[in-house]
Amino acid sequence: MSERNKVAIIMGSDSDFSTVKPGIELLKSFGVHVDVKILSAHRTPDHVAEYARTAQQRGIGVIIGAAGKAAHLPGIIAAYTTLPVIGLPIKSSTLDGLDSLLSIVQMPKGIPVATVAINGSENAALLAAQILALGDEKLSETLKQYRISMEEQVLAKNEQVQKELG
Amino acid sequence: MSERNKVAIIMGSDSDFSTVKPGIELLKSFGVHVDVKILSAHRTPDHVAEYARTAQQRGIGVIIGAAGKAAHLPGIIAAYTTLPVIGLPIKSSTLDGLDSLLSIVQMPKGIPVATVAINGSENAALLAAQILALGDEKLSETLKQYRISMEEQVLAKNEQVQKELG
Amino acid sequence: MSERNKVAIIMGSDSDFSTVKPGIELLKSFGVHVDVKILSAHRTPDHVAEYARTAQQRGIGVIIGAAGKAAHLPGIIAAYTTLPVIGLPIKSSTLDGLDSLLSIVQMPKGIPVATVAINGSENAALLAAQILALGDEKLSETLKQYRISMEEQVLAKNEQVQKELG
Amino acid sequence: MSERNKVAIIMGSDSDFSTVKPGIELLKSFGVHVDVKILSAHRTPDHVAEYARTAQQRGIGVIIGAAGKAAHLPGIIAAYTTLPVIGLPIKSSTLDGLDSLLSIVQMPKGIPVATVAINGSENAALLAAQILALGDEKLSETLKQYRISMEEQVLAKNEQVQKELG
Amino acid sequence: MSERNKVAIIMGSDSDFSTVKPGIELLKSFGVHVDVKILSAHRTPDHVAEYARTAQQRGIGVIIGAAGKAAHLPGIIAAYTTLPVIGLPIKSSTLDGLDSLLSIVQMPKGIPVATVAINGSENAALLAAQILALGDEKLSETLKQYRISMEEQVLAKNEQVQKELG
Amino acid sequence: MSERNKVAIIMGSDSDFSTVKPGIELLKSFGVHVDVKILSAHRTPDHVAEYARTAQQRGIGVIIGAAGKAAHLPGIIAAYTTLPVIGLPIKSSTLDGLDSLLSIVQMPKGIPVATVAINGSENAALLAAQILALGDEKLSETLKQYRISMEEQVLAKNEQVQKELG
Amino acid sequence: MSERNKVAIIMGSDSDFSTVKPGIELLKSFGVHVDVKILSAHRTPDHVAEYARTAQQRGIGVIIGAAGKAAHLPGIIAAYTTLPVIGLPIKSSTLDGLDSLLSIVQMPKGIPVATVAINGSENAALLAAQILALGDEKLSETLKQYRISMEEQVLAKNEQVQKELG
Amino acid sequence: MSERNKVAIIMGSDSDFSTVKPGIELLKSFGVHVDVKILSAHRTPDHVAEYARTAQQRGIGVIIGAAGKAAHLPGIIAAYTTLPVIGLPIKSSTLDGLDSLLSIVQMPKGIPVATVAINGSENAALLAAQILALGDEKLSETLKQYRISMEEQVLAKNEQVQKELG
Repeated sequence: MSERNKVAIIMGSDSDFSTVKPGIELLKSFGVHVDVKILSAHRTPDHVAEYARTAQQRGIGVIIGAAGKAAHLPGIIAAYTTLPVIGLPIKSSTLDGLDSLLSIVQMPKGIPVATVAINGSENAALLAAQILALGDEKLSETLKQYRISMEEQVLAKNEQVQKELG
Repeated sequence: MSERNKVAIIMGSDSDFSTVKPGIELLKSFGVHVDVKILSAHRTPDHVAEYARTAQQRGIGVIIGAAGKAAHLPGIIAAYTTLPVIGLPIKSSTLDGLDSLLSIVQMPKGIPVATVAINGSENAALLAAQILALGDEKLSETLKQYRISMEEQVLAKNEQVQKELG
Repeated sequence: MSERNKVAIIMGSDSDFSTVKPGIELLKSFGVHVDVKILSAHRTPDHVAEYARTAQQRGIGVIIGAAGKAAHLPGIIAAYTTLPVIGLPIKSSTLDGLDSLLSIVQMPKGIPVATVAINGSENAALLAAQILALGDEKLSETLKQYRISMEEQVLAKNEQVQKELG
Repeated sequence: MSERNKVAIIMGSDSDFSTVKPGIELLKSFGVHVDVKILSAHRTPDHVAEYARTAQQRGIGVIIGAAGKAAHLPGIIAAYTTLPVIGLPIKSSTLDGLDSLLSIVQMPKGIPVATVAINGSENAALLAAQILALGDEKLSETLKQYRISMEEQVLAKNEQVQKELG
Repeated sequence: MSERNKVAIIMGSDSDFSTVKPGIELLKSFGVHVDVKILSAHRTPDHVAEYARTAQQRGIGVIIGAAGKAAHLPGIIAAYTTLPVIGLPIKSSTLDGLDSLLSIVQMPKGIPVATVAINGSENAALLAAQILALGDEKLSETLKQYRISMEEQVLAKNEQVQKELG
Repeated sequence: MSERNKVAIIMGSDSDFSTVKPGIELLKSFGVHVDVKILSAHRTPDHVAEYARTAQQRGIGVIIGAAGKAAHLPGIIAAYTTLPVIGLPIKSSTLDGLDSLLSIVQMPKGIPVATVAINGSENAALLAAQILALGDEKLSETLKQYRISMEEQVLAKNEQVQKELG
Repeated sequence: MSERNKVAIIMGSDSDFSTVKPGIELLKSFGVHVDVKILSAHRTPDHVAEYARTAQQRGIGVIIGAAGKAAHLPGIIAAYTTLPVIGLPIKSSTLDGLDSLLSIVQMPKGIPVATVAINGSENAALLAAQILALGDEKLSETLKQYRISMEEQVLAKNEQVQKELG
Repeated sequence: MSERNKVAIIMGSDSDFSTVKPGIELLKSFGVHVDVKILSAHRTPDHVAEYARTAQQRGIGVIIGAAGKAAHLPGIIAAYTTLPVIGLPIKSSTLDGLDSLLSIVQMPKGIPVATVAINGSENAALLAAQILALGDEKLSETLKQYRISMEEQVLAKNEQVQKELG
């Protein structure tokens, strides 16, 4: 397991970068190594195929594919590897992300893509971390702490609202 | 032009065959050579890439890609060739074909797919023929005759309704 | 890793069983231990919470939650564990599964659910297996063989179509 | 009835507060006691369960749950109480509130959520008041006056338009 | 409170009867008096207005309005009473109930309708009962027992699945 | 016919006024008398009923009802008159007008509403004028002139583009 | 007015006939003359243009255009006449009529189509009759009687339900 | 072939010009002759018919029709020619382009329109060029170079991201 502990984050266009970034930073904050690429399923199909095919031997454990519109990137990555592939649908200028979502989640039988919410960059990162944590006790502990801190933040905001309204 | 007069029809699954068949037969009735394949963008990605990459040199002029759900097949074919690629969205058991349609038509900038109606097999075939007919006077004439015969059919049905209601 | 190699499959209603079954069988065919439960996020919320909270210590590595309509089950499971949770949207009698899909995939920031296609039981199973395979070399090999057999099936069907049309 | 005359308003995130606020103020203007909380079905599930389970004994008559995206909050509250639960879908940054609406309204058989319009904060408040008014003659009268004042406002605006256009 | 303990169930067309019936029977099984009417917001608008306007004085506590397509019935009932009105969207032959749902739930500010799931007849009934139970200790107890029996049914089915798969 | 030559334009809220205004002005420019009202199907139902019931005897020939969200206004007007009623769906802050459109167009059998495009104020006005023109030769001529002027505008813009592109 | 008292009903395909038929029969039962045609906007565009252009001089007062999928027929008819054109969206084998509805109702500024519900054949007929009735006192009376008979039918069904449930 | 090497670009309104422009420029950069027109299927139907009918004899090989809302333009062009017609759906102020897309892509059997993504002006242009390139070796080479330059751009951006994150 020790040799497959990196997360690859591939996005179809540099215009997706600002949406993807919070997920990159979250993974780094967990101490997870990330390999970030801009590769397009349509404009650089061979590079996507090559990356996916060789990901496992280069120590990648999970691949996140982020794309918008007719978002084929995560599905095509998944076609070239049996590593778990997470699909991150990016909202584009029309159809409010519904096209990206359906293009990613409705994968036909045989090749799954683990799809998260539209623009849900942090959730893609958290899911990747949760998967890696199955074989990494320390990361598992980090994620449990993260949950506790999220809970505390909600409760703190709850306290604050009580005061404001009180 | 004489050497690029065939239409390739690739479908993602043999379950698409009955929907695609009327289009195959229409092309044959026009005297157009067809090359029919079952190849999956996800389960046989290398075969799709290889087919698309070499299509032009094997005399293919237009490629029709038919697929359902997260229908990546036509887009991936288009990624490997500059031949015109026609996308035929197949309705599957959920979402009434909307997922197939959006996955095919919403291609990002740079790689177009010429999309026809959901389950519109004959229209995919007609579009392929119309494209080839630009360089094939005889086929062009055939298509014009086909238009006339469609018109005559509508007018005959109109006559019949007049009689029935008269 | 050896102690977290089971997949839990929880469905919200026994009416989901026929849709979920192919996934159960696929996992069994891979030699993966499955723990199948019928538990409802709304009618048995405490049992769901208890199951999710204690899943990790009972050797569960991945949990699949299958539910229809306002499908809260996978999201609620995910609220009680940091194990990866896979959401399987079930199509019900109205809205063609769109309600189930959105209720599962659009999880807010902090708690991801790895969503697969509507009624995509086998893909939920495959995704669970791919996740476990990160720590299980033999399962990883099984999945690669499964991919090869899928590829061979497509190619065999392609051969057959050539003959039929030839 | 005198001891169950409060309305609890629980929102899943402090980002929902500005949308929820007009409803809080409307209830206060009716003289209805409100208990406002920020509690998340996913990040603080135990607090939600505990709150819902004990609401009735603390004098709560109706609970409003406001949430966006895969909005599980009102459904989960409803799972822990037989008090009427009102679901208020909040529009988030994608899908225009459709995900929130379907996640709240499409509750499976057995556990209803009384759903109001997307971002319909005042209507959630009015519905809560109408429910409490069944056992509170004075509140019932207040609501009838409110209706009359709404009618008068419409008629006044109608007068004004006549003048402007006249 | 004792004089407002009946539930009115109004449906827009007799074709809605089979969908509405399970809710009628559920309320009767709880010992709740029901007044069932077929009245159309469009074909008998005066009767709807008259019924809604006088409901309260005839001992009605909650009104359920069931309708399909451009389902105006519950909203129009709500316009004529301050009693809580529950909207039950009926799926018709096109659009899978989405038209009914949006026509009922998206009520403008000032006049709420408590909307339940498409074809969710039992949930409309349960919601009505939960509202009446605020002033009826016995009914409240009945509903709690109903919850327990639902929980037991789920657990029984869970037991059964264990045996079948075991 | 001479006594039914006015168009009533009723909107559900003064917030619809800016959208409706171009239609009012277009009708005035055609010399058609308009009667503009702000009346709500939900907040002033009796006024709507009264207006619709007596419209014909006051010389109204066509009624335009403009409303947003669960837009019941045109349908309720249509329930109280056999004059042609035109429905104008107004886009509100969520769902992009789809709720308004479906609430207006999907009228059940027996009571039609002539629906135009979302926010299509001018088209509602033109349709009203086209209906009145059946009995008003001069208005008919005016509408034909309007068509010609629209055609000329398009052709003028076409000329201009030719020049700009040179 | 006496010379423009016929309704033309044009459908795009003979497959629409069974859906359109109830409307034809309703108009006939009202004593309205109908002219039924099968003409396609795409396969017989010149015939559609010619029919629409000359409709007024042949005594047509209203034209109903019925079509499915990318339903251009009513819009194209409307482009060639200033008579009121009613659009009847026909549900086809995919997308549940949404494509037909949007293709008909969303007409751009300048050329309205009076759209009725998907498959709403009787409502198209009723709307046509209501328009003609503006200049035909007898037809106006017939329509008022039709309303009364609809009301009586609803009330009769209401009586019947009372007996069955009583 | 040499005499049918121009692309016609017809848009329904001058408001579409800014969206269509990048496609015009792309074609010009490829050395393809373009004929740009503003012609409306509804406001100038005869001009559209005339243009489409005579396009082939004036050396047009492909026609792009761009339109929004109930976008009938490309379908009507296609009705008058057997040249390949590309449909470019333009997003308008409501429904996010879904109406335009469905109005263009869902063409009934017999008359195809090659539809590209909503607002996908460059893809319409590229598709037109790919079609013409079947008979134009030099253009074919230009398109292959364009693909290579797109690939290089993606790879350059990938390099840049490595540096920024490195």
